[in-house]
Amino acid sequence: MILINGQPDNRIPVTDRGLQYGDGLFETLAFRQGKLEYLAAHLQRMAKGCERLNISFSDKDKLEFELATLCAQTAEDSVIKIMLTRGSGGRGYKAPTDAEPLRIISSHPMPDYPQSCQQGITVRLCQHRLGINPGLAGIKHLNRLEQVLARSEWDDDNIREGLMLDVKDRLVEGTMSNLFLVHQGQLITPTLTENGISGIMRAAVIKSAAELAIPVKEKDLTLADLELADEVFLTNSLIGIWPVTELDGSDCYWEHGELTRHLQSELKTTER
Amino acid sequence: MILINGQPDNRIPVTDRGLQYGDGLFETLAFRQGKLEYLAAHLQRMAKGCERLNISFSDKDKLEFELATLCAQTAEDSVIKIMLTRGSGGRGYKAPTDAEPLRIISSHPMPDYPQSCQQGITVRLCQHRLGINPGLAGIKHLNRLEQVLARSEWDDDNIREGLMLDVKDRLVEGTMSNLFLVHQGQLITPTLTENGISGIMRAAVIKSAAELAIPVKEKDLTLADLELADEVFLTNSLIGIWPVTELDGSDCYWEHGELTRHLQSELKTTER
Repeated sequence: MILINGQPDNRIPVTDRGLQYGDGLFETLAFRQGKLEYLAAHLQRMAKGCERLNISFSDKDKLEFELATLCAQTAEDSVIKIMLTRGSGGRGYKAPTDAEPLRIISSHPMPDYPQSCQQGITVRLCQHRLGINPGLAGIKHLNRLEQVLARSEWDDDNIREGLMLDVKDRLVEGTMSNLFLVHQGQLITPTLTENGISGIMRAAVIKSAAELAIPVKEKDLTLADLELADEVFLTNSLIGIWPVTELDGSDCYWEHGELTRHLQSELKTTER
Repeated sequence: MILINGQPDNRIPVTDRGLQYGDGLFETLAFRQGKLEYLAAHLQRMAKGCERLNISFSDKDKLEFELATLCAQTAEDSVIKIMLTRGSGGRGYKAPTDAEPLRIISSHPMPDYPQSCQQGITVRLCQHRLGINPGLAGIKHLNRLEQVLARSEWDDDNIREGLMLDVKDRLVEGTMSNLFLVHQGQLITPTLTENGISGIMRAAVIKSAAELAIPVKEKDLTLADLELADEVFLTNSLIGIWPVTELDGSDCYWEHGELTRHLQSELKTTER
């Protein structure tokens, strides 16, 4: 089911700037046990993105109402995707001042990842590099060619995710997930000020770690840090935490370690 | 008028990856005196973009036929926009192998820039910086938030264009145009290997210069180079060549100089 500005529909105008320029934002939420997980956090990130792109988010209440309508007709264990575009109009790149944003919400089956992913996955290193763009870093905007190109590099379903370096050789994230390393009892995750998406599950993990008195540090990471890590895991709103146990094509293996297990079980008990 | 895969329509599926991820390309052509200017060059750039993004361009013949159909019903002095998206499908960022690309072509009124722009314009320096991404540099893809943000910085119609620096302080291009400097009889234009769009009019100017035995150099440029320039001009497929005579908010002025005039008149006689 798809609702566009509250109406059941499945098409948008060609003139929409979301299509023309990727001029918009999106969120991907898990709908489980009758609940849109981390809804407030997702809407907060969307509001932040709107501020950065100067897109009006005055229809937040309508969006929440529409999400409730959609969820009422959606099977549990689904994915809900929200897209918010600037709408139509303007002259070329110049955005109109009176644009009416387009709210597109849709439900999708939850990807059927095997249960074993919770115990460990194999990842690869992508060749396509993330660019650097502080002005767009952190927000979940619709310009996602970097991720599309990186994800196109492999077909093997046994490789669950690809890690991405940026053009400065920093290890930033997975194509669809954030990265955490455990090193000497400390949790380390890349700084996302020049690129990357500031994930909702990433924030939840950082919060959980703080509550468990596990030290967390945001810093630039390299492949050398990955090799030295005691544990490695990835996060996103659908997968939660996936331990990384193998880097394809390398001698790098990691355990599904204690700290990762601890965070996984902590997250299960946390209010989503 | 809009044709989508050859059919008159004005809406596309929400599932289209052009909307979802900016997963596609576009071209903007001038239609004048019954001719789509530089059509072959535009299609060649699109083919190059398809190769880079691994989008099938097997329907090039259909596209050309559809363009002819559209132009037959379009007033002269119009803008024709072509968008080619990867189409619908795939799992998240992972593109489907059997995607059917979407061809969207549309006609628009030519922007009514005053004739005086041919003698000189005022530009500004944008605050928003271009990122760095060699994998996407040069091609005209649909991830255009950088240009949208830069173009949103000013409203004054007397400022016709904004110049953009990148995150390495290099002067790369305008929001919708390529940049040329004239220095001591030599034509200089930024290298576009790490960002920027490789413009069709840029290529035409470089070709004309070569025919006129004007030396042309592609190199990294900075603001200092701009200040030292004897002449400055911008190019794109709709404007041709616009001399830059003033940088807003600075002491920088340039003449509508001899070399720029020479290239402007040369381009008028060139086969488009």
